[in-house]
Amino acid sequence: MTRLARCVWPLYAVLAAGTVAAQSPQGGAVAAAPSQTPPRTVSEILAATAPSDWRALDPENTLYLELPQGRVVVELAPAFAPQHAVNIRMLVRQKYFDGLAIIRSQDNFVVQWGDPENKRPLGAAHARLPPEFTVAATAGLPFEPLPDRDGYAAQVGFSQGFPAARDPARGEAWLTHCYGMVGAGRANEPESGNGAELYVVTGHAPRQLDRNIALVGRVVRGMELLSTMPRGTGPLGFYEKPEQYVPIASVRVAADVPAAERTPLEVLRTDTASFRAVVEARRNRRDDWYLVPAGYVDVCNVPIMARPPP
Amino acid sequence: MTRLARCVWPLYAVLAAGTVAAQSPQGGAVAAAPSQTPPRTVSEILAATAPSDWRALDPENTLYLELPQGRVVVELAPAFAPQHAVNIRMLVRQKYFDGLAIIRSQDNFVVQWGDPENKRPLGAAHARLPPEFTVAATAGLPFEPLPDRDGYAAQVGFSQGFPAARDPARGEAWLTHCYGMVGAGRANEPESGNGAELYVVTGHAPRQLDRNIALVGRVVRGMELLSTMPRGTGPLGFYEKPEQYVPIASVRVAADVPAAERTPLEVLRTDTASFRAVVEARRNRRDDWYLVPAGYVDVCNVPIMARPPP
Repeated sequence: MTRLARCVWPLYAVLAAGTVAAQSPQGGAVAAAPSQTPPRTVSEILAATAPSDWRALDPENTLYLELPQGRVVVELAPAFAPQHAVNIRMLVRQKYFDGLAIIRSQDNFVVQWGDPENKRPLGAAHARLPPEFTVAATAGLPFEPLPDRDGYAAQVGFSQGFPAARDPARGEAWLTHCYGMVGAGRANEPESGNGAELYVVTGHAPRQLDRNIALVGRVVRGMELLSTMPRGTGPLGFYEKPEQYVPIASVRVAADVPAAERTPLEVLRTDTASFRAVVEARRNRRDDWYLVPAGYVDVCNVPIMARPPP
Repeated sequence: MTRLARCVWPLYAVLAAGTVAAQSPQGGAVAAAPSQTPPRTVSEILAATAPSDWRALDPENTLYLELPQGRVVVELAPAFAPQHAVNIRMLVRQKYFDGLAIIRSQDNFVVQWGDPENKRPLGAAHARLPPEFTVAATAGLPFEPLPDRDGYAAQVGFSQGFPAARDPARGEAWLTHCYGMVGAGRANEPESGNGAELYVVTGHAPRQLDRNIALVGRVVRGMELLSTMPRGTGPLGFYEKPEQYVPIASVRVAADVPAAERTPLEVLRTDTASFRAVVEARRNRRDDWYLVPAGYVDVCNVPIMARPPP
């Protein structure tokens, strides 16, 4: 029963209330372990984090997708897709998504929701948006590079809690299509996306989509509700019959939800020594189970932890 | 509704009967498209394959995992884990797995099955096996390298229908932990795996496991039955209550199943020009939807197609 049990730190386990309850209140920021210090596990690193290593989700940048299975919490990324964030908030506040459905679940790729009839009026929201597929990689854009090379981009790393990439030669940065990332579907025209149809990556990172479509945020809680949706049997995983649709009760901006009904969450800041220690612990697993540390980590294999505030 | 619909060739779609029925009988082997020829889609490449581009699954290397949701088909990889393949066949033929269960489903990682009590006798099968985590990268081991660099290994590519890696300096080759790969759980001792507890990758490739545990095969049909298992709420995704277990009706070697009850499948050979053309089509998507071809493909983003024989 314990076979394989020790092999990998449980992804997302800290999302469960209390998992990191042993957090030391006096724990300070932790530098990436130099080789002469004993290696620490991710759990030990998290237990030693300081309160300042975490940031609360901004309610104005947080969406609640209410499904029969429960609530999915999405953090928007206005630094990378500002106009999409504005449009999505507008759609949400018009209750555009309420009563629509998840209409697609393609194995090892994405789930997608929106209006299956594509008829619901967008109201005050824009029907077309600029293609926010990359942003200028200015000095003002935080970027914590991974030490490792990447195949799809000149640099990869993290920006304000999101997996990201950067091309210094072109002066561009963009979010990367890792598991749990949320994007805005579009048709062939680059400006045809508007946030009314959203998808979430549920499989191996489809990084070929990077720079081709606007990523707008990340699921920070509830991925397991989306990843287990029955796969659609139509082309591209679309559900073939309306009775297969998974209904969306509502989508809300957290700021519009009474405080008592919000899901309190904070995210480990990716610009901290604690996060860099997590990255190093994932690059080289040193517990008793591993024989060969990889000496490498894919940008999509670094967990960005969220937890209820202690 | 069609937003995002054209963005990616549907993984696994050819697993459905008839999807590639338009295959041209006169289609010959196809070289990777040089830049002056019009780019072809994966569907076009598949439609032009010759019968010799495909190989039937060997019934002696094929397992049927029978679940309430349907049949999962696994191809064993005896070239990489020969003693595990022998032991697993032995366990299957002793009906070791019949009546056991899927006991773990960890989001973005693995499902796992075996004996939750760890008490069922192994019979004539070995309790411990040599750690078949790598094999000698001899001249006799087929290996089709990808042109692209990889972060976890000196070389990656494909060997006899499986994603694989190779280290010429060490003279080693191994299978890679891509979505759908099947491995044999083990405890901390490298020899503690025996194939009685098997796992399947259901998330972003956990490549850090490469060379640390024995991969024994690949799911060639039915991944969507495993990937949608409800996630376990215990540590590491184990189900906390026996009533959550997903029962295994039986596991059979296809050779032991009457021909009429087998699932006829053939797999695109990875040592063909057709497969290399598929790789190139995935490295650089050139349909009307894509703006920026990646010029790269992760070894775990190349589909290894299976289909019913035409």
